[in-house]
Amino acid sequence: GDFAKLDTGREARTGIPEAIFAESKEDEDLIKIILKGVDNGRLMVTKLERERYDLIKPQIGTLEDKGFKFEYNKRAKILLIKNHEIEKEGKIGVITAGTSDIPVAEEARITAEEVGCEVLTSYDVGVAGIHRLFAHINEMIGADVKALVVVAGMEGALPSVVAGLVDVPVIGVPTSVGYGVGEGGFTALFAMLQSCAPGIAVVNIDNGFGAGVVAAKIAKQS
Amino acid sequence: GDFAKLDTGREARTGIPEAIFAESKEDEDLIKIILKGVDNGRLMVTKLERERYDLIKPQIGTLEDKGFKFEYNKRAKILLIKNHEIEKEGKIGVITAGTSDIPVAEEARITAEEVGCEVLTSYDVGVAGIHRLFAHINEMIGADVKALVVVAGMEGALPSVVAGLVDVPVIGVPTSVGYGVGEGGFTALFAMLQSCAPGIAVVNIDNGFGAGVVAAKIAKQS
Amino acid sequence: GDFAKLDTGREARTGIPEAIFAESKEDEDLIKIILKGVDNGRLMVTKLERERYDLIKPQIGTLEDKGFKFEYNKRAKILLIKNHEIEKEGKIGVITAGTSDIPVAEEARITAEEVGCEVLTSYDVGVAGIHRLFAHINEMIGADVKALVVVAGMEGALPSVVAGLVDVPVIGVPTSVGYGVGEGGFTALFAMLQSCAPGIAVVNIDNGFGAGVVAAKIAKQS
Amino acid sequence: GDFAKLDTGREARTGIPEAIFAESKEDEDLIKIILKGVDNGRLMVTKLERERYDLIKPQIGTLEDKGFKFEYNKRAKILLIKNHEIEKEGKIGVITAGTSDIPVAEEARITAEEVGCEVLTSYDVGVAGIHRLFAHINEMIGADVKALVVVAGMEGALPSVVAGLVDVPVIGVPTSVGYGVGEGGFTALFAMLQSCAPGIAVVNIDNGFGAGVVAAKIAKQS
Amino acid sequence: GDFAKLDTGREARTGIPEAIFAESKEDEDLIKIILKGVDNGRLMVTKLERERYDLIKPQIGTLEDKGFKFEYNKRAKILLIKNHEIEKEGKIGVITAGTSDIPVAEEARITAEEVGCEVLTSYDVGVAGIHRLFAHINEMIGADVKALVVVAGMEGALPSVVAGLVDVPVIGVPTSVGYGVGEGGFTALFAMLQSCAPGIAVVNIDNGFGAGVVAAKIAKQS
Amino acid sequence: GDFAKLDTGREARTGIPEAIFAESKEDEDLIKIILKGVDNGRLMVTKLERERYDLIKPQIGTLEDKGFKFEYNKRAKILLIKNHEIEKEGKIGVITAGTSDIPVAEEARITAEEVGCEVLTSYDVGVAGIHRLFAHINEMIGADVKALVVVAGMEGALPSVVAGLVDVPVIGVPTSVGYGVGEGGFTALFAMLQSCAPGIAVVNIDNGFGAGVVAAKIAKQS
Amino acid sequence: GDFAKLDTGREARTGIPEAIFAESKEDEDLIKIILKGVDNGRLMVTKLERERYDLIKPQIGTLEDKGFKFEYNKRAKILLIKNHEIEKEGKIGVITAGTSDIPVAEEARITAEEVGCEVLTSYDVGVAGIHRLFAHINEMIGADVKALVVVAGMEGALPSVVAGLVDVPVIGVPTSVGYGVGEGGFTALFAMLQSCAPGIAVVNIDNGFGAGVVAAKIAKQS
Amino acid sequence: GDFAKLDTGREARTGIPEAIFAESKEDEDLIKIILKGVDNGRLMVTKLERERYDLIKPQIGTLEDKGFKFEYNKRAKILLIKNHEIEKEGKIGVITAGTSDIPVAEEARITAEEVGCEVLTSYDVGVAGIHRLFAHINEMIGADVKALVVVAGMEGALPSVVAGLVDVPVIGVPTSVGYGVGEGGFTALFAMLQSCAPGIAVVNIDNGFGAGVVAAKIAKQS
Ligand SMILES: Nc1ncnc2c1ncn2[C@@H]1O[C@H](COP(=O)(O)O)[C@@H](O)[C@H]1O
Ligand SMILES: Nc1ncnc2c1ncn2[C@@H]1O[C@H](COP(=O)(O)O)[C@@H](O)[C@H]1O
Ligand SMILES: Nc1ncnc2c1ncn2[C@@H]1O[C@H](COP(=O)(O)O)[C@@H](O)[C@H]1O
Ligand SMILES: Nc1ncnc2c1ncn2[C@@H]1O[C@H](COP(=O)(O)O)[C@@H](O)[C@H]1O
Ligand SMILES: [Mg+2]
Ligand SMILES: [Mg+2]
Ligand SMILES: [Mg+2]
Ligand SMILES: [Mg+2]
Ligand SMILES: [Mg+2]
Ligand SMILES: [Mg+2]
Ligand SMILES: [Mg+2]
Ligand SMILES: [Mg+2]
Repeated sequence: GDFAKLDTGREARTGIPEAIFAESKEDEDLIKIILKGVDNGRLMVTKLERERYDLIKPQIGTLEDKGFKFEYNKRAKILLIKNHEIEKEGKIGVITAGTSDIPVAEEARITAEEVGCEVLTSYDVGVAGIHRLFAHINEMIGADVKALVVVAGMEGALPSVVAGLVDVPVIGVPTSVGYGVGEGGFTALFAMLQSCAPGIAVVNIDNGFGAGVVAAKIAKQS
Repeated sequence: GDFAKLDTGREARTGIPEAIFAESKEDEDLIKIILKGVDNGRLMVTKLERERYDLIKPQIGTLEDKGFKFEYNKRAKILLIKNHEIEKEGKIGVITAGTSDIPVAEEARITAEEVGCEVLTSYDVGVAGIHRLFAHINEMIGADVKALVVVAGMEGALPSVVAGLVDVPVIGVPTSVGYGVGEGGFTALFAMLQSCAPGIAVVNIDNGFGAGVVAAKIAKQS
Repeated sequence: GDFAKLDTGREARTGIPEAIFAESKEDEDLIKIILKGVDNGRLMVTKLERERYDLIKPQIGTLEDKGFKFEYNKRAKILLIKNHEIEKEGKIGVITAGTSDIPVAEEARITAEEVGCEVLTSYDVGVAGIHRLFAHINEMIGADVKALVVVAGMEGALPSVVAGLVDVPVIGVPTSVGYGVGEGGFTALFAMLQSCAPGIAVVNIDNGFGAGVVAAKIAKQS
Repeated sequence: GDFAKLDTGREARTGIPEAIFAESKEDEDLIKIILKGVDNGRLMVTKLERERYDLIKPQIGTLEDKGFKFEYNKRAKILLIKNHEIEKEGKIGVITAGTSDIPVAEEARITAEEVGCEVLTSYDVGVAGIHRLFAHINEMIGADVKALVVVAGMEGALPSVVAGLVDVPVIGVPTSVGYGVGEGGFTALFAMLQSCAPGIAVVNIDNGFGAGVVAAKIAKQS
Repeated sequence: GDFAKLDTGREARTGIPEAIFAESKEDEDLIKIILKGVDNGRLMVTKLERERYDLIKPQIGTLEDKGFKFEYNKRAKILLIKNHEIEKEGKIGVITAGTSDIPVAEEARITAEEVGCEVLTSYDVGVAGIHRLFAHINEMIGADVKALVVVAGMEGALPSVVAGLVDVPVIGVPTSVGYGVGEGGFTALFAMLQSCAPGIAVVNIDNGFGAGVVAAKIAKQS
Repeated sequence: GDFAKLDTGREARTGIPEAIFAESKEDEDLIKIILKGVDNGRLMVTKLERERYDLIKPQIGTLEDKGFKFEYNKRAKILLIKNHEIEKEGKIGVITAGTSDIPVAEEARITAEEVGCEVLTSYDVGVAGIHRLFAHINEMIGADVKALVVVAGMEGALPSVVAGLVDVPVIGVPTSVGYGVGEGGFTALFAMLQSCAPGIAVVNIDNGFGAGVVAAKIAKQS
Repeated sequence: GDFAKLDTGREARTGIPEAIFAESKEDEDLIKIILKGVDNGRLMVTKLERERYDLIKPQIGTLEDKGFKFEYNKRAKILLIKNHEIEKEGKIGVITAGTSDIPVAEEARITAEEVGCEVLTSYDVGVAGIHRLFAHINEMIGADVKALVVVAGMEGALPSVVAGLVDVPVIGVPTSVGYGVGEGGFTALFAMLQSCAPGIAVVNIDNGFGAGVVAAKIAKQS
Repeated sequence: GDFAKLDTGREARTGIPEAIFAESKEDEDLIKIILKGVDNGRLMVTKLERERYDLIKPQIGTLEDKGFKFEYNKRAKILLIKNHEIEKEGKIGVITAGTSDIPVAEEARITAEEVGCEVLTSYDVGVAGIHRLFAHINEMIGADVKALVVVAGMEGALPSVVAGLVDVPVIGVPTSVGYGVGEGGFTALFAMLQSCAPGIAVVNIDNGFGAGVVAAKIAKQS
């Protein structure tokens, strides 16, 4: 009776697939929600650890018999369940400052692809010499990306640097990579928000999903 | 010799006019920077109070003899100095939750116009009944806006509501309107960042300028 | 001699059963307090994990011989021990924004029932389309609830929405469901406190117990 | 055209009069909003300083010719404009810990009266001997109040003490009265939220208005 | 050569025994420090968990052959190693609000005893009816205690209540017992510091050791 | 009827004079409270600025006719009104780190004297060479002080240094003297609470009054 | 007797002149301290506003008769009083990100000069194109500076950029220039501390004085 | 293709070896980065726990065949991989307040040695009597150290004490050793930044690596 009303109209209404945030849900609930949630033909489960996926897989595997395909990405911690692909229109770029920021970047990439756009990536460019950063960005701009998702932890400086170089909007994603004053990601978040370089908008700490949605929405405006 | 190197190449490089943040500068410096800064033909001075404008006007008025036009907007606290208009391409919408949020919204509007896009506005819709909010948003979507800037203080809930209704990206602007736990705007900022509704990216508290730039950049992608 | 003076007069004095907060107590203490605490005929143990309940059960099981009934609710993490039921007067509603908020809501429900009122529930209505939210609330109002407990994590917006729709007082319960800026529940708490919609009062983060008591007290005023 | 949409349907919908929060609005806006806002026959302007009231009075005085009565309360910083009184049903009590908390308490009192209930007050009882506190509360309970608004700054202990003594719900209002660690009112707020005494719900710091609304709503349930 | 210079002169100089804070030290270091530290004839190891004590016991057990006695208190998490007792002069009282505060109180008690004073205790009096609290305190005052250590978590109200009743100085000890806004003990700490009742001084969160030292120093002044 | 119930029994009950915290009270209230408050023969008004004292003096001057003496100390911002002196027993010392800490130290001195003890002072010893600090402290210990009040802003290190040198209890008073990370006094407060030197208890930021009371209470135990 | 013990031995002992922090001192005290403080022949008064300097000048002007020279720098808010110059050895550079950071940079420059080293400056280079930043830094390195003081507010990114380019140690100085999340300078401070570029050490927000001392000490090591 | 671009030019450009921050990287990534990173002949891996080192050792052990030497320091949690030593020039000192601060100090020591300078150490001097502290520091100054790294947790007072005694620059390193208000290291950090003793610059909490780099850079200036 009184349980887990899925927002099955959302895909139609806002153009993005239903996404389940796995982290704070109990296994039992998660499984029920997944089984109900595929009615629209596509579902994303985010922040789902490998071990947990292995654990619940048997109980949701029946969906495969109904024609659903499972794609699990361990880095991004995303499970995709779908019975159709969506067409791609528009292109974005995703960049990370360090290696540790890659999981969040991958979450953004997969999300943007599922919302329906092409994604170019360039990871761990933060400590590279500045000319190599230039090269990477030029390549993306040359490929006509409509937005750049820039993922960074620590002091969160990369989005400012990038925004100083390009005309396309920059979506900054602070990560919780850091220690001491940087622990939890607030230093990166605040630095991005307080950036001197105009043209940056920011999402929550570690919110690759949110960044992917916004960037894809931008790309689809064109 | 050693003073105030203006970034006069920026307009060409990133498509936005040089903007001077007046608040933390001393009058003397501000005047020098303005006189040097108009070389590109366009300049914005932001967060400039009416009294202060009246005070420095005499010392920068000579620019009028050189063919520059002055436009001062008291609500937005913006001074525009320019000898040419720029062409508009693309359209965005700007919405506020309350009356107190209007100054920040006006800063966003003027900035976006100067970056070169058309702006529709709808202010103080937060406490209106929800069907009237629908009406306002529908009108903007109908006019084919490419992004919505949504300005709100207090508990900062409006961007979430709007993002739940539309396909275009939403740029949330928290304002410092609030008291008690809401003083300074952090509650509004954090609520926007933690929003359940995907498709929102956020700028710094009271940063109408930044929101205007991002939104205009989005509109110009199309 | 010097140990754990139970407030056995409280039920008589304030109308609510003795409640033991299990979380910060050591097993040994908890058991002693339970064995002493049932003198009034009713006792609630809150924030008691399933594993812990299983562990201490053998040592408090003797109470069953003395006519006490045990009811353990795993979701709510509440253990009820009682030798009589109390009469119900008045009615309240309990609503949650998401699935992850249900444990806190269940704590509120059981508490309110034990204080002596009827409880209607409607869980996970936050992302439902707004008309369905209307329907759920209308039903509760129609059933003449005297207060609504609204439980939400993340950006904590649901109590504001509900308070804008009803005449009955709303008790907001922020939960620690969230991440990044929302971790720990402070964003939800502050958003509820700073709500533009009048008619909301708030309890501590994850404090379903407190909300249940207040709501039941309101219902019993009528 | 695009200005200050008043929520004139609210009184009917939620039973409380339109209230204008004066603090963050510019004079010009405030006046326009007031002149528009009286259409329902009743209006409250809150957080309006005496000097400011004197300043805008001439520009809103024309309402007196239209049959509106002005009541300004300097302590509560509330201006009432109305052409009819509302009927009172139900009763609440308002208590303060110190003298400095009285302005917030008066805001609560007037608000509750305008929402339509009777209010008993007892101010500065915090440092009185505990038997005198008992006496004051007994009197209120004896008069059959349905809720107690307890206003306190500093360490915010009074609501806990009161909630330990009574059966009616307690609405705690933290004030920004305090210094050092107590500056701004967060210590009082957090102490009330973390109270060991069940039966307390809390509103924002200095939010007498909100407490008045909630308490009156409770009283009107009976 | 370069390792762990013990402050072996301290007992003589300030009247308190050398105390080792075990928590942040590695086992290896801890053992070396203990073996060196007993030169004065007395040593306290604080915040030492039972399991850890069992683990290092074999490696420090040789001290028993040298005439040292070991006293381990599991609740207080204190290990005493000594070859003589010190004489007691003066008396203090230690009180807790709840059961969960007892470990910190026990740390205070043992410390005060080792600094050389007698200690009366009364635990879990916080939720007891107020007359029973009176009784407990009266008894202590009657026994001529020179200071009261009052230990409380949650909203930390007990020290204020006690200080309002007695002439002797009150040492407040906030504990990390609490949740939501009270997590970590800051609410209790700030409430004690901001207390309206004069005569309270405070130590760090969970710092039973510090409170024991201060209280004993007061008692030894007489 | 309903106004400012003074705690006139306090002097008898706890040995300290009624003290009025002037800062957050309106003139009108302050005057009424003073006129009522002298019934016990002694009254302290704290945090009362010179200008404000001059302003209200005429309205309370009538007390002089009734045999009350006025003593106003500008540095301490304390007004004493009394018709008798109290006997002194016991002695304490008051020390400051810098010149800017003197007002808070003076508040402590006067308070302690009014509670009835002798006070030795030594101000601005923080930056003095360490042997001179030794000299000052030795002198106080030689004079048999029973407690030392140590007042410091900035990084708040002085109480730790002093506590490492003496046997008497140290009451640390953090001041709001500082800037950047030290602004508001929290750095000093936290450093005192987290001190490695045992024997320190702390009061609220700038709370010279509270420190004076505690220290005098200690001195009176002997 | 008991007033303002100046640390007149410090110049000899640590190589830096006595510096008086004017901000939190009352005029009266400040004047006394200055008159006493010149005994060593050199004195700096920091954070001294122009108006205040004009006000106290008459009362300290007598020092001019005694052979002291006054140098007041309005931007740096520093007053130098001295009867001799000190020899310069070593060289440092001072750089600012924006115009608003210049006052703090000037404080650093004058301080370093008074500690005895030569200073090169380059202000407002933050938004300049990156090749121009290179040019400025190359020039300084070419002049053989031993340390770079880098002053920045907002998101505080400049020290990281500079440290990535040079071999000399970088002293980062965060300024309180910023708004919203950047207000007060904490974002800049934390970003500098959390920098990915090794070779940066940091001083307190707006602490140009401290940075000048450290940098000069480094230069004098060579 | 798109993975972990190592900054192999850094050693040449800034004089410090490539350092890998192990903590936030997954094993797989860490191994790949190490295998690629040794191209310059030297590599440091920091914050690498013993267990983790043992785990990945087999997969990087092949480097030993290529002439690389492995040095793992368990306390410092640093792994050095190199095929050559670097020449030492200049000398620094490293001091800790307590035993628990030694790991961070060792990180600083090894780093400074790898950047190419000699290091003297003196650990756990914080609680030693002050004359012994003098002795340790005198010895270092006598050995002509060019900078002192001072590591301290808790209230972080040691750097201030040291800076008051010496002419060389002091690099303060706050550690996360502390509890209650000191938990996480912020109290130590802020106390160092707010120090009254000029000549201190500070690095991030627990950042021994950063301190080692800065100190070595200073030593190499001479
Ligand atoms: N109102 C504003 N809010 C946020 N950023 C601004 C604003 N006005 C200008 N800025 C940006 O902040 C930078 C400040 O530069 P400056 O005026 O040189 O201090 C400018 O380059 C703008 O891009
Ligand atoms: N889950 C809960 N949340 C908040 N308060 C609680 C909870 N459970 C019990 N309490 C209250 O907290 C008090 C804690 O008391 P004790 O169990 O004696 O520590 C009880 O008397 C209850 O009123
Ligand atoms: N003093 C007050 N404290 C808290 N909320 C208020 C106060 N006065 C008005 N409000 C509410 O805040 C909203 C602000 O609306 P507005 O005046 O349009 O900005 C009103 O609709 C009221 O419900
Ligand atoms: N502008 C400044 N910023 C930081 N510290 C300062 C400044 N000016 C002076 N100081 C230091 O702070 C101490 C303050 O001492 P006092 O003037 O006695 O309060 C002086 O000894 C200086 O070392
Ligand atoms: Mg890398
Ligand atoms: Mg409005
Ligand atoms: Mg759901
Ligand atoms: Mg009073
Ligand atoms: Mg209990
Ligand atoms: Mg001084
Ligand atoms: Mg500039
Ligand atoms: Mg030690």
